[in-house]
Amino acid sequence: MKKRSMLSRQIRIVTIAIFCLAYTFGVFQVLGQATSSKLIDAKVHSRALENNLLGDSADQQVAVYLPPSYETSPSKRFPVIYFLHGYSPENQVMEQGKQFQELMNKLIAAGTVREMIVVVPNGRNAYYGSFYTNSSVGGNWEDFITRDVVSYVDGNYRTIPQAASRGITGHSMGGYGSIVMGMKHPDTFGAVYSLSACCTSMLADLGPSNTSWRQALKFKSKDDFRADSFNSVYAIALTAMAAAFSPNPNRAPLFVDFPFQLENNLLVPNSPAYTRFQAKLPVNMVTEYAGNLLKLRGIYVDYGVQEEFSHIPAGSLALSRELSEHGIPHTFEVYQGDHNRRIPERLETRVLPFFSRLLKFEAR
Amino acid sequence: MKKRSMLSRQIRIVTIAIFCLAYTFGVFQVLGQATSSKLIDAKVHSRALENNLLGDSADQQVAVYLPPSYETSPSKRFPVIYFLHGYSPENQVMEQGKQFQELMNKLIAAGTVREMIVVVPNGRNAYYGSFYTNSSVGGNWEDFITRDVVSYVDGNYRTIPQAASRGITGHSMGGYGSIVMGMKHPDTFGAVYSLSACCTSMLADLGPSNTSWRQALKFKSKDDFRADSFNSVYAIALTAMAAAFSPNPNRAPLFVDFPFQLENNLLVPNSPAYTRFQAKLPVNMVTEYAGNLLKLRGIYVDYGVQEEFSHIPAGSLALSRELSEHGIPHTFEVYQGDHNRRIPERLETRVLPFFSRLLKFEAR
Amino acid sequence: MKKRSMLSRQIRIVTIAIFCLAYTFGVFQVLGQATSSKLIDAKVHSRALENNLLGDSADQQVAVYLPPSYETSPSKRFPVIYFLHGYSPENQVMEQGKQFQELMNKLIAAGTVREMIVVVPNGRNAYYGSFYTNSSVGGNWEDFITRDVVSYVDGNYRTIPQAASRGITGHSMGGYGSIVMGMKHPDTFGAVYSLSACCTSMLADLGPSNTSWRQALKFKSKDDFRADSFNSVYAIALTAMAAAFSPNPNRAPLFVDFPFQLENNLLVPNSPAYTRFQAKLPVNMVTEYAGNLLKLRGIYVDYGVQEEFSHIPAGSLALSRELSEHGIPHTFEVYQGDHNRRIPERLETRVLPFFSRLLKFEAR
Amino acid sequence: MKKRSMLSRQIRIVTIAIFCLAYTFGVFQVLGQATSSKLIDAKVHSRALENNLLGDSADQQVAVYLPPSYETSPSKRFPVIYFLHGYSPENQVMEQGKQFQELMNKLIAAGTVREMIVVVPNGRNAYYGSFYTNSSVGGNWEDFITRDVVSYVDGNYRTIPQAASRGITGHSMGGYGSIVMGMKHPDTFGAVYSLSACCTSMLADLGPSNTSWRQALKFKSKDDFRADSFNSVYAIALTAMAAAFSPNPNRAPLFVDFPFQLENNLLVPNSPAYTRFQAKLPVNMVTEYAGNLLKLRGIYVDYGVQEEFSHIPAGSLALSRELSEHGIPHTFEVYQGDHNRRIPERLETRVLPFFSRLLKFEAR
Repeated sequence: MKKRSMLSRQIRIVTIAIFCLAYTFGVFQVLGQATSSKLIDAKVHSRALENNLLGDSADQQVAVYLPPSYETSPSKRFPVIYFLHGYSPENQVMEQGKQFQELMNKLIAAGTVREMIVVVPNGRNAYYGSFYTNSSVGGNWEDFITRDVVSYVDGNYRTIPQAASRGITGHSMGGYGSIVMGMKHPDTFGAVYSLSACCTSMLADLGPSNTSWRQALKFKSKDDFRADSFNSVYAIALTAMAAAFSPNPNRAPLFVDFPFQLENNLLVPNSPAYTRFQAKLPVNMVTEYAGNLLKLRGIYVDYGVQEEFSHIPAGSLALSRELSEHGIPHTFEVYQGDHNRRIPERLETRVLPFFSRLLKFEAR
Repeated sequence: MKKRSMLSRQIRIVTIAIFCLAYTFGVFQVLGQATSSKLIDAKVHSRALENNLLGDSADQQVAVYLPPSYETSPSKRFPVIYFLHGYSPENQVMEQGKQFQELMNKLIAAGTVREMIVVVPNGRNAYYGSFYTNSSVGGNWEDFITRDVVSYVDGNYRTIPQAASRGITGHSMGGYGSIVMGMKHPDTFGAVYSLSACCTSMLADLGPSNTSWRQALKFKSKDDFRADSFNSVYAIALTAMAAAFSPNPNRAPLFVDFPFQLENNLLVPNSPAYTRFQAKLPVNMVTEYAGNLLKLRGIYVDYGVQEEFSHIPAGSLALSRELSEHGIPHTFEVYQGDHNRRIPERLETRVLPFFSRLLKFEAR
Repeated sequence: MKKRSMLSRQIRIVTIAIFCLAYTFGVFQVLGQATSSKLIDAKVHSRALENNLLGDSADQQVAVYLPPSYETSPSKRFPVIYFLHGYSPENQVMEQGKQFQELMNKLIAAGTVREMIVVVPNGRNAYYGSFYTNSSVGGNWEDFITRDVVSYVDGNYRTIPQAASRGITGHSMGGYGSIVMGMKHPDTFGAVYSLSACCTSMLADLGPSNTSWRQALKFKSKDDFRADSFNSVYAIALTAMAAAFSPNPNRAPLFVDFPFQLENNLLVPNSPAYTRFQAKLPVNMVTEYAGNLLKLRGIYVDYGVQEEFSHIPAGSLALSRELSEHGIPHTFEVYQGDHNRRIPERLETRVLPFFSRLLKFEAR
Repeated sequence: MKKRSMLSRQIRIVTIAIFCLAYTFGVFQVLGQATSSKLIDAKVHSRALENNLLGDSADQQVAVYLPPSYETSPSKRFPVIYFLHGYSPENQVMEQGKQFQELMNKLIAAGTVREMIVVVPNGRNAYYGSFYTNSSVGGNWEDFITRDVVSYVDGNYRTIPQAASRGITGHSMGGYGSIVMGMKHPDTFGAVYSLSACCTSMLADLGPSNTSWRQALKFKSKDDFRADSFNSVYAIALTAMAAAFSPNPNRAPLFVDFPFQLENNLLVPNSPAYTRFQAKLPVNMVTEYAGNLLKLRGIYVDYGVQEEFSHIPAGSLALSRELSEHGIPHTFEVYQGDHNRRIPERLETRVLPFFSRLLKFEAR
C-alpha cells in the first residue's frame, strides 16, 4: 500500500518532469461571476469497457464545458470539440476541463472563437494510458469515445449532432487518438487537430534503439513498474502501448505481446505482434483510410522543434508526408516549443480558432 | 481487322521506343553445341485464369531454361529463378527466355553463377499487362504464378521445391510483381530482386499531374485504345493498372473503376477505387507484410538515374524508405542507366549472382 | 515580325492553359467610388539590370497598391507586401496589381485584414522569366527586388521601412523567388508565403525523366523557341531556368549551360553546371541559410493536390522536410486545387491574413 | 592523476559497452608462419596537426598492412584501402590493423579478394575523436589523412598512386569521415564504403531531444568529463563534434561553440555555430559536392536495423535519399545487426570484396 503510493509519487514527479502533458498555466485566474459558462464533472458508463482485463471501471469520468450562451439561450445548439488528453499516471480530466473553460471564456469574450461545447473524456487506465484504442485487454476505448461519450453528450446537451459540427483534438497520446479517430470515424468527427502526437510511427525513440524496450521486456507484472527514471517511465509507457496495440489476453499477468524480442541480445521484431503494433500507427493507416480522410473538413498536425520525444518530430513529418503522398489536404506546422509548455498557447491561437472556423454552427 | 493490326504496330513502335521493357542485346550470339542447356516453350493451364472477363486464355505460355548439367547429371536438382517481364503489347516469353539462356550459359561457363533453372511465365493480357495480380476482371494472375506455374515447374523438372531455393525477380511491371510476391508469398519464394519496379507508389507520373489519366477516363471501350503517342500508350497502361488494382466486373465493357475522377475539371480521388488502387501499391503494403518480408533471405531493389518514368525513382526510394522504417533488411541501388538499356547488364552483374549467392542449392 | 506575334499568341494560349499563373477571377467587380484605394503603375530603374545579356531594359514596371487610408490619413505609415508573379510570356504586373486591389479593398472593408501596401514588380524577361535571381546573363533580379524596388517603395511611399513590416510572397516562379528572398534577406523581409513554388528541388518533372530537357538541348537560339505544345513551352522554361541558375555569359547566343547533357542518348549531369543549378534550388539552400530562416516571423509553404507540375508537390514536401529537419518553424499546407485556379482564394483566405497577422504595424 | 586514470577506465568500460566501435573477434587466431603478410606500426608527422589547441601530437600512429605478395613479388604494386576507425577513448590503431591483417590473409587465401594494402591511421584526439575534419581547434585532420598519410604511404610502399586504386572506408565516426573524404577528395580516393556512419545529419539523437546536449553545455573544462553513464559519454562526444564542426579557438578552455543554446530552458539553435555545424554534415553537403560524388567508382552506405544511435538509421536513410534525389549512383544496405557486433562480418563479406572489385589493380 505504502509502496504503491510512493511509486505513484515517483511516477508523478518523473512523469510531470519529463513525460507527456501536465502543462500548466502560468496563472490560473479565478473565474469571475460574469461568465455564466459551466464545467460539469460527469460519469459515463460504457459497455465497451466492461470486463476489461486491466480491471478498469466501465464508468469513466468526462468533463463537459458549456459556453455562456448555453444557459442564456436555452434553445440554441452548439458544435462540440472533443479533447483527448495525454499519457499520465494522474487523472487529468477536470484539470484539462478547467483549462478549456478559461481559454474558451477568454476567447469567446474577445470574439476570437464562437461558442462551442468542449468535452474531455478520461483516457487513462491501469497502465496510465489507453491510447484510446480498442483492445482485447484494456477494453474498447475507441468505442467508448465514439459511441458512448458522443451519445451521452448528444443525449444530454444541446449539441448539433452531426460530424460537421464535431471536432476532435488531443495532445501526445491524445494527438494519436485524435488522428486515428479522424481516420476511422469521419462520420462522427468532421475535423481533426493533432497536437504533438505520439506514436504516429515507430521511428527514432520508438524503435529498437530505445533501451526502454529491454527494460519493458523484463517486467514480470505491474509490481515491477518503477518510475524512478526517464527510461523506467518510458518502459511503462511502452507496456501500455503494447496493451493497446498488440494485446494478448492469454498472457497474464501483463497481457501483452511486445513488438520486439531479444535474440542474441539484439532487439528484433517479434512477429506477428510487430505487425499488429505497426498496423495501429497512423503513418501505416493512411492508405486504408484515405477515403475517410478525404471526407474531413480539416486536418491539422503540429509539433515543437524542441520536442523531447524524438519519434514525435520524425513521426509527424512522416505523417504529413504520407498524407501528401496520398493527396490528402492537411496543414502541418512546426513551431518553437517543446512537448508541453506551449500547448496552452497552441490551444488558444490554433486549435480553438481552427474548430471555430471549420465546424458547422447550423444543423444540416 | 486491319485497324487492329495497324494499331498493334503503332503500339509496338511507341511502346518499344518509350514504354517498358523490350531491351535487347547488342548481339545475339549463336549458341554453340557445347552448351547442353535447354530452353523449353511450355504451356501451363491455370484454373485461376479461367473465365476472366478480358477474354484471356487460361492456357499461358511459360519458358523454362534448364542449365547444362540438367541433362548430364540426371539426378541433380536445381534452384529456380522466376522472372516476371514488363508491360508490353508484344509477347515476350521466349525472347526473355533466350536472353536468360545466353546469360546463364555464359555466367555458368565463367564460374560466376551456379547452375539454376530460370522460368519466364507470360504476364501479358488483353490490356497488355496483368500486373501479376489477382483481379476479379483479369483473372487471378498471382495465383497463376504462385500456384500453377510453380507446381508445374516443380512437377515437371528436377527443382529443389522449397522457398529457400526459389527466387523471384522482374522488370518494370515485373519488378512490381516480384516485390509483391515476396511480400505475400515468402513460403514460396525465398529472395526477391526487383528491377526498376513500376507502380510501387502513386507519386510523380502516377499521380494526378499525369494528363494520361484524363485520356484514360475518356475511353469508352478497347476500341478507343490508340497508341500513337507516349500519352496514349500511358493511358492504356493506366487502364490496365485499373483493371488490375481497382477492377469492377459490373462495369462493362472496360470493367474498371479509375482511382481518379473529374470534378470541375480537376482530377480528384474516386473513392473507394482510389483506396483499393493504393492498397495494391507496395509502399502501402509494407506494414501488413512486414512479418513476411522479414522471412526473406534477401531483398534487392534498384533503378537507373535516367529512368524515363518519374514515379519509378520516387517510388523505389519510397519503398526503400518504408523497408528501412519498418526495420526490414534490404539493398537499394541507384545506378547510371535508364528504364531499359542496362537491364541485360544488371541481370548479368547483379540479379543472377544475387540468386546464386542467396538461394539454397541443397534440399533442407 | 508576323512569326513572332504568332509565336507569342501560341505561347500565350499554351502557357495560359498549362503553365504558370494567369489565374483569373470569376468576376472582376467594378470598383466603387467609396474605396479611395489607388493602384499606381510605376517604373523603377535598376543599376542591377543594366547591361544584361538578354537585352532586357533596366527600367522595370512595378505596380503599387495603396490602401484607402493612405490618402485619408496622410501621416499614417503601412507595412508592405511584395508579390512575385509566375513565369509567363505575358506582362502581368498591372493584372496582378488589380487583383490585389480588389482583394485588399474587399478584405479591408470586411475587417479581415489590416491596411497594407502591396507591390508587384515585374519579373519577366526575354526568356519569359527571370526567376528573380542574380545572373551573369539575365542581370541581377534579386538585387533589383531587394534593393531597387524596396528603396523605391520606401523612398516614395509612407511605408514602415523595416523587415518586420515587409512580407514577401509569390506564386510558382514567384513562389520560388519568395522563399529564396526569405532565406537570403531576412533583414529586408520579415515573413514569407510561398504559393505552389516551382523549382524548389530537381525532382520529378525537373529531373532527367522530363523529355523537354532534350528539346531544350537542341535550341540553337531564341528563334527555335516554339510554344506549340506543353513540352515546347516547358523546354523554353527550362532554358530560362538555366539562364537564371547556370548562366554562361561566354556561350552566345543563348548564354546558358544546361545542367544535363546527352551521353549515349542518356541525360547525364553536366558538371559543374549541374552543381551550380542545384545550388540555386531552395531544398539545397536550407543548411546555408538556416540561421537566416530562423530570423523570420513566419514561413508558409503550400501547394494543391491536383498540381500539374509534378516537381511542385515533390519539391514542396522536400522543402517542408528540410525545414523540419533543420528545426525551422514553418507551416506547410496541402489543399484541393491545381496550379492556378484557386490562387485568388488562397490569397484571400491565407496569404493576406497571414501578413496582416504577422507583420508589424508600428515602427520599432 | 589517479582521478584521470579512473576516469579513463570508466570511460573505457562505458564506451566499450555502449558507444562506438571496439568490436572484437570471437577468437584472435595466432598468425601462422606461412602467411608472409606484414603489419607495420608507423608514425607519420603532419604539419597539418602542428600547434593544434587540444595539445595533440603532430606525430600520429598509422598501421600499414602489406599483403603476402608484397614481399615475394618485389616489383608488384598494390591498391590501398584506408580505414578510419570510430570514436573511442582508446587507441585502436594496431587493434584494427590486426583485424584487417587476419581478414585480408583469410580472404586472399580463399581467393575472395585480391591483394591490397590496408592503412589504419589514428583519428583519436584529446576529446577522443577528431571526426577526421579540419578544425581551427583540433588541427587539420582531413589534411593529415588526404595529404600526409597518403603521401607517406605512397612514398614508402609500392602502391598504385592514383585515385582509382585508393579506397576509403570507416565505421561510425570513421563512416562519417569516409563519406566526407569521398565528397571532397575524389581525386585522391576512387571509392567509398561507409559503415554505420555517425553524424550524417542532425536527426533523432543528434537533435535537441538528446538531453546530453544540456550536459555538454554545462562543461566548464575537460575536468568535467565524466564517463559514468551513456548520457555522459554522449555529452563528451557532442563536445568533440563541436570541436570538429563548430570550433572556436577564442573560447578557452574547451574551444567550442555548441550548435544549441538554452533559452527559457529550451534548446534552441545557436547561430552561426548551428549553421557551421550543420554544414559539416554529409546530408547537407551533397549539393555542393554532387559533381565530385559523380566521379567516384562506387559509393556504399549501410547500417544495422538494431543500431543503438537513432540518428544513424535516420541519417543514413537521409543520405541515401539525398544521393538519389541528386542522381548520384550508390548502394544503400540495411542489415540485421547493431552498431558494432557485425562489423567484422561486414568487412569480410562487403567492404573488402567491394574494393577488390572496384579498385584498379593496374596503373593508368
